[in-house]
Amino acid sequence: MKRKVIASILGMLLLFPTLAFAEDATAAQLQAAINSVWVMVAAILVIFMQAGFALLESGSTRMKNAGHVAGKTILTFGICAVAFWAVGFGFAFGDGNSFIGTTGFFVDGTIEQAEAAFSSLGFSDINISIKFMFQLAFAGVSLAIAFGGFAERGKLSIYFIFSILFTVVIYPIVAHWVWGGGWLSKIGMQDFAGSTVVHLQGATAALVATLLLKPRIGKYNKDRTPNLIPGHNQVLSVLGVVILWIGWFGFNPGSTLSAMGDGFFGYVALTTNLAAAAGGVAALIISWMYLGKADIPSMLNGVLAALVAITAACAYVEPWAAVVIGAVSGVITFFTAQWFERGGVDDPVFAFSVHGIAGVWGTLSTGIFATEKLAAQNGVGKAGLLYGGGFEQLGVQALGVFGAFVFVFIISFVILGILKYTIGLRVTEEEEIVGLDLSEHGSYGYPEQMKKLAGEGGESARTTTV
Amino acid sequence: MKRKVIASILGMLLLFPTLAFAEDATAAQLQAAINSVWVMVAAILVIFMQAGFALLESGSTRMKNAGHVAGKTILTFGICAVAFWAVGFGFAFGDGNSFIGTTGFFVDGTIEQAEAAFSSLGFSDINISIKFMFQLAFAGVSLAIAFGGFAERGKLSIYFIFSILFTVVIYPIVAHWVWGGGWLSKIGMQDFAGSTVVHLQGATAALVATLLLKPRIGKYNKDRTPNLIPGHNQVLSVLGVVILWIGWFGFNPGSTLSAMGDGFFGYVALTTNLAAAAGGVAALIISWMYLGKADIPSMLNGVLAALVAITAACAYVEPWAAVVIGAVSGVITFFTAQWFERGGVDDPVFAFSVHGIAGVWGTLSTGIFATEKLAAQNGVGKAGLLYGGGFEQLGVQALGVFGAFVFVFIISFVILGILKYTIGLRVTEEEEIVGLDLSEHGSYGYPEQMKKLAGEGGESARTTTV
Amino acid sequence: MKRKVIASILGMLLLFPTLAFAEDATAAQLQAAINSVWVMVAAILVIFMQAGFALLESGSTRMKNAGHVAGKTILTFGICAVAFWAVGFGFAFGDGNSFIGTTGFFVDGTIEQAEAAFSSLGFSDINISIKFMFQLAFAGVSLAIAFGGFAERGKLSIYFIFSILFTVVIYPIVAHWVWGGGWLSKIGMQDFAGSTVVHLQGATAALVATLLLKPRIGKYNKDRTPNLIPGHNQVLSVLGVVILWIGWFGFNPGSTLSAMGDGFFGYVALTTNLAAAAGGVAALIISWMYLGKADIPSMLNGVLAALVAITAACAYVEPWAAVVIGAVSGVITFFTAQWFERGGVDDPVFAFSVHGIAGVWGTLSTGIFATEKLAAQNGVGKAGLLYGGGFEQLGVQALGVFGAFVFVFIISFVILGILKYTIGLRVTEEEEIVGLDLSEHGSYGYPEQMKKLAGEGGESARTTTV
Repeated sequence: MKRKVIASILGMLLLFPTLAFAEDATAAQLQAAINSVWVMVAAILVIFMQAGFALLESGSTRMKNAGHVAGKTILTFGICAVAFWAVGFGFAFGDGNSFIGTTGFFVDGTIEQAEAAFSSLGFSDINISIKFMFQLAFAGVSLAIAFGGFAERGKLSIYFIFSILFTVVIYPIVAHWVWGGGWLSKIGMQDFAGSTVVHLQGATAALVATLLLKPRIGKYNKDRTPNLIPGHNQVLSVLGVVILWIGWFGFNPGSTLSAMGDGFFGYVALTTNLAAAAGGVAALIISWMYLGKADIPSMLNGVLAALVAITAACAYVEPWAAVVIGAVSGVITFFTAQWFERGGVDDPVFAFSVHGIAGVWGTLSTGIFATEKLAAQNGVGKAGLLYGGGFEQLGVQALGVFGAFVFVFIISFVILGILKYTIGLRVTEEEEIVGLDLSEHGSYGYPEQMKKLAGEGGESARTTTV
Repeated sequence: MKRKVIASILGMLLLFPTLAFAEDATAAQLQAAINSVWVMVAAILVIFMQAGFALLESGSTRMKNAGHVAGKTILTFGICAVAFWAVGFGFAFGDGNSFIGTTGFFVDGTIEQAEAAFSSLGFSDINISIKFMFQLAFAGVSLAIAFGGFAERGKLSIYFIFSILFTVVIYPIVAHWVWGGGWLSKIGMQDFAGSTVVHLQGATAALVATLLLKPRIGKYNKDRTPNLIPGHNQVLSVLGVVILWIGWFGFNPGSTLSAMGDGFFGYVALTTNLAAAAGGVAALIISWMYLGKADIPSMLNGVLAALVAITAACAYVEPWAAVVIGAVSGVITFFTAQWFERGGVDDPVFAFSVHGIAGVWGTLSTGIFATEKLAAQNGVGKAGLLYGGGFEQLGVQALGVFGAFVFVFIISFVILGILKYTIGLRVTEEEEIVGLDLSEHGSYGYPEQMKKLAGEGGESARTTTV
Repeated sequence: MKRKVIASILGMLLLFPTLAFAEDATAAQLQAAINSVWVMVAAILVIFMQAGFALLESGSTRMKNAGHVAGKTILTFGICAVAFWAVGFGFAFGDGNSFIGTTGFFVDGTIEQAEAAFSSLGFSDINISIKFMFQLAFAGVSLAIAFGGFAERGKLSIYFIFSILFTVVIYPIVAHWVWGGGWLSKIGMQDFAGSTVVHLQGATAALVATLLLKPRIGKYNKDRTPNLIPGHNQVLSVLGVVILWIGWFGFNPGSTLSAMGDGFFGYVALTTNLAAAAGGVAALIISWMYLGKADIPSMLNGVLAALVAITAACAYVEPWAAVVIGAVSGVITFFTAQWFERGGVDDPVFAFSVHGIAGVWGTLSTGIFATEKLAAQNGVGKAGLLYGGGFEQLGVQALGVFGAFVFVFIISFVILGILKYTIGLRVTEEEEIVGLDLSEHGSYGYPEQMKKLAGEGGESARTTTV
């Protein structure tokens, strides 16, 4: 012990910065450390999903917009990170009422603030900074989904404004309802990692955006039949989907907020992975049967839709049910994507089908497949329809979906509607045709290739002004 | 304590789903949690290797096949994930005999199943779901390697069928032999993380595939001299290799299945990293000396070959030996890749040289360089030739290599042979020329670029049928 | 217990390699395991940053050099990994004097070597292999930064030689000064994770390189005005930056070298993330105001500059200060990048602005914003100017910056100067025009696209010699 103490003092005086402990840690401290490491790793995985969205979305759109689409992901996550730290996290998880949190702004990482402002987060041994990082990652995912609806025609200034408002006004309120002690958690809604809170929310904002922005130039013919506007790079899309799949191992298993409990977070990884696998395979098969060709973008959407759906259910259902939930997601997303497209909704990356429809299905499926044992162990509600819960839990889930959808739809509609009739949501027709890379950012994302494809161009803002 | 209990109840009733513990965790529970976090992280890293394979393989093939090559990785991992969960894992790790496991199908994550069906997994405090995820990741890697041999000419339907059969019939049997209590583990074969089990197996199936499929159109001239068919994107290949390198920090160090033991998993990371580094540098130097130019694909293959080789040996050898094993791998893979190519074997991504030859070398090198201390501490066998073990361990390793190679070669040959003469392994000549993106999936992976390169085209299945 | 023991013996005799413990682990062992897992994860994240640099740098340069730029990252990290293991780590962290370490070469991972050669690393329960991997990752980042200055015109042979010399002679000495018990740590310099040690060092070598190499062909007009040479792929650059951002969650929070201390590593993640977010948003806004277009490369540089700056300060400052430090970094990097460019310094990826200027700012900002509490808890020095520390800590920081810059500048200048006048630093004019892919490696990184862009070409070294 003496040697340890001396070494510890040496360590603090001279050397590489480290945290030295002269005394043995208690079991509670050790448990806190383990849980903290796990949730921090999960947070990092979920933040990495920003790369997944950047790649998937830019791969699924055209070369002339690729730099913009990828780059704006960093911008919007940056805005979200500051705004959620300053305000959003307090609204979502601060102590408050059934509607909104009212404490905990400007998170400072101290135990004092954690105890004073976040007592409703309940027993948890994880540092408030780590909880914040984990929840920020979720808010960032929801925001990235929302911006799918703006793709290839939204104005850059709108990305600034809507990032702030979504992060501060929209997302935290629904998060508070379900996860922050609000009314939906009180009635027992079970949304383990956010099929509704994260995915349906973002997708609903995306739907409103795509409705208000109107279809891209060239998407529809005069007879209202849609044209395919294929994404420019399936390899990037595939990479994006693998990153998202990997990120989901933070998203869902990390939402246990604990590494204890006999490795239950591993069980959540198992159900999550089975659903994703089943969703991708099912979507590919359906596209093959229905289109005559095994469509890769449909498969990718199937993987994501399945991941979205299992997000609510992952901790409550058995593995076989995860396979069913995932496979069904792949199929319904395939068909609904086409229905929306044929119905005149130009949702360039199918955000509402992938994250909205599958988010609804996943939230409802929890009310169908949740087992009594798992719901009792990990949930706030009851077993689902197939496990003796009757329609009660299913009804709660449906109410949650309905409440979140209506709230987000209305508030997004109001915000984006005001923006539309003031500063405008959409770039000019000329700017859209030339592409957002050049019109919004002054240089192509792929200058050498675009010069060849489009003749000349590719001048940069910097060339002309520096 | 009272406050903790109340908070815990509150936590379970109202709030964000969490696992609350009113009592202090025991040392065994804490250890289980630490080990579980480490192995889960390792599993995630190994699953991320799917992105590495997708990028490396698509970067190393042509633009007209890029979407297919990347996309099929997701498809085959999806099939593997469901099939390994349902059947493969039980065959591999379930209790059974020296040849195959016969219990533990449809993994349900319960302690009951773990104890009843997987008692031969022995003492381990890690949840069966996490063990499954880790092992699934390995099966997925082996399968991805196998499909390297099918590149640029295999039929999509074959990917479906062979994914199932490899995951269910081939991989689990060899895994059982070495890691599931089968005959090779009983005679003391040391293959720490799978140079033979994962890499040689996958590579052998790839070799059979490439022999049965025959060379790609244009690969050989009439005088049997080979033409280079360069991959279309070295940046993607490099990214793929870095991801694989990173993933290997899950592959090898994660195979300790423990974070205890004074950080031994870190030692495994050290040997793994040294080998990879030495292999890449050695391969680049050799290519420079031999070809007159420092060939980047050769360097990338050198890194991978070294990683493959150190996979068996990483826990048994000293750091200097890791450098030697890695450097030798880089050199032998460089030359064998060219010998196979000149010998008429068109293995588009050099799967058999990189994973097969290096897998053999790595397994044998364990019989040469394994130290007594490390073999006693971590292995099931003895020291290698250079550390007083004589030829005994080397003989065991050679027998293991021979057994695995012969078994996988024969069974793959039978399966793929039957498929070849029934539904056919290969797309038509016309489909191969136009590329698999268009012929198998109905749209180019790079539609804008391909239209310019190849004239028109780029129609999607969806355009014409929706 | 009996059952455990039997299972453990079974586990060691027959089965999948595992580390079995018959007795309960002590608190110290558990703590060591937790800390080891966290630092290993951090090391993996920092090594993953090599992918970030490969993508950012190749995305920011031209298509004809893309394979070279990406591929050389693997080469130089490979050389660094072996050289740092053999020599560099001992110079940096081995016991020695105030200038350099003199023990601990050829790291063997044993406790014996750790105690005999690295006693100045002080109390830490993390295995020496893991410490090595973590520090290697840092050396690799510094080296990758240095090579930014060589981009698009450096000879491949120089990459070999300078990788060794930087890893062995330059980096370890400054690392020893600040982190290995050297003179800067003795006077209380606070550089938590290396704004000076890693970033300023690498950037200073890059500056020397870019000065000695002279500008790329076509960069400057006869009137000395610069031309923009835009990078070829912003999507890759964005992906690179997200990977770097993610990697920084290993870089800074991992530098706690502990998961204990009430999750303090999470606090470091919080400040790191806030700075990055603020830096990116600030740089985009400034570019919009100043250039009239929201320049994506400027935003990416803003993110990185902020991460560089917060690297020194992350453990010592409050969240609001992290926002300020990050935002200021984004702005000063934007302007200094342009000043250097207009001043005739052709630094292709702005390495000195992003890592050097921001590194200086970050190190100094620690002397301004460090709070007494955090400096006492985690640092070796005192509070900053705004927290009652007067100019004392700021002076120490300035001295550290000055010492590191002068040392690295001089020694790099000597090394590269000698190389310049012996074997030459730069490829021939013809080689530079044709591109390094073809001239140094014998094949294009994008053969299909380059053939179309540049007419014919794309022959590989392998075609002609195999």
